[in-house]
Amino acid sequence: MTNIDRIQALAFDVFGTVVDWRGTIIRDGEAFGRKHGLDLDWAAFADEWRGLYQPAMSKVRDGEIPFVKLDVLHRMNLDDLLARHGITGLTEDAIEELNRVWHRLDPWPDAVAGLQRLRRRFILVTLSNGNVRLIVDMAKRAGLPWDMVLGAEVVRHYKPQPSAYLKSVELLSLEPAECLMIAAHASDLQAAASCGMPTAFVPRPLEHGPGTYREPDGLDAFDFVADDFLDLAQQLGC
Amino acid sequence: MTNIDRIQALAFDVFGTVVDWRGTIIRDGEAFGRKHGLDLDWAAFADEWRGLYQPAMSKVRDGEIPFVKLDVLHRMNLDDLLARHGITGLTEDAIEELNRVWHRLDPWPDAVAGLQRLRRRFILVTLSNGNVRLIVDMAKRAGLPWDMVLGAEVVRHYKPQPSAYLKSVELLSLEPAECLMIAAHASDLQAAASCGMPTAFVPRPLEHGPGTYREPDGLDAFDFVADDFLDLAQQLGC
Repeated sequence: MTNIDRIQALAFDVFGTVVDWRGTIIRDGEAFGRKHGLDLDWAAFADEWRGLYQPAMSKVRDGEIPFVKLDVLHRMNLDDLLARHGITGLTEDAIEELNRVWHRLDPWPDAVAGLQRLRRRFILVTLSNGNVRLIVDMAKRAGLPWDMVLGAEVVRHYKPQPSAYLKSVELLSLEPAECLMIAAHASDLQAAASCGMPTAFVPRPLEHGPGTYREPDGLDAFDFVADDFLDLAQQLGC
Repeated sequence: MTNIDRIQALAFDVFGTVVDWRGTIIRDGEAFGRKHGLDLDWAAFADEWRGLYQPAMSKVRDGEIPFVKLDVLHRMNLDDLLARHGITGLTEDAIEELNRVWHRLDPWPDAVAGLQRLRRRFILVTLSNGNVRLIVDMAKRAGLPWDMVLGAEVVRHYKPQPSAYLKSVELLSLEPAECLMIAAHASDLQAAASCGMPTAFVPRPLEHGPGTYREPDGLDAFDFVADDFLDLAQQLGC
């Protein structure tokens, strides 16, 4: 049984949970396409790009390649995708600008207001696979009020490896039971729970586009299920 | 010659540069003393405690003991000091409350306003020997608007070891020349400059108490010398 009074920090997954990667890549990509004369289905492009995310991290998790920043994995995947789509002639600067769309992702509508409420009572950290600079750039642009950026690059382990959670919590001088993991993805929460962290599920039904959402099984395994960050703040007494 | 236009992030020393450790320990200590019936010269106590700081970190830097958080070093030093002064009978909770005074240090009067101005244009990070939780607690209490906490605990090297600076800068995906080190201590800036970072000296004449300040030699080696953080913001065009 989770003791809610013990919670001192909230650790957030970011891509999909705090920000709308797909919607932003579509909007940003369409502007990029107009500028560079590309005629692409950016929704399909976003999904393909995101589809290469887990396989790329698996290479690191499995020790096939050494730890590299997520920016580097995103760029390897982008180069693959551009080749697949026969897109040539972009300058290095243009490709880098496109790769950095992940630094410019827009938050879900409730995210900033919800985090501001939660921050009054708790330490707020990111526990994302995004690298530090990506998360910092995103936060400055969108006004996300993190107290600290933790997660993959700081601890040099990609989620869902247990070290990604445990070393992040240790950097806060907390026990896992004192740090609530918040995500829109059941698998992330299950990995956090295996490390002893309490969990909060916040569904983001539009993450993969309209009409694609299916509620995961086993929601009652999580300590909280909240409609959005404002509802979570309410449930946590903020 | 430092190219000012390249600077993207500002890295701050904290103890003495951003916050007044001595003044806070005196005020906090006096209240602690009244509560626990101790009659102590808290200014001398603060100076003695701080005096044990470098020797304790040297044990880590020299490999005599493994890396531990600064909270742990502060506590070892506090236990020594209490024994030296013949102070017995404090509970574990009371000793821990006193040890955590370092999490409650008050900023110099210009610090919050200066950082808010600087933050509009630059990424602001701490590059301190303080551990993550210490810096996060201090920032939340005082309203210090850091974008990220870097430094000793994150990179597991105490300043002035070069890795403390270089690994912190690398976590921001920057070159040393793109990250300005700001401190009230010439030795910290000299170590940063040896790593290729530009430097800004901000004197804090009251750090060691009234009437103790002596301007260091060789100020013209630093890229900026500013009266306080507001003056630094002005010089950096914020």
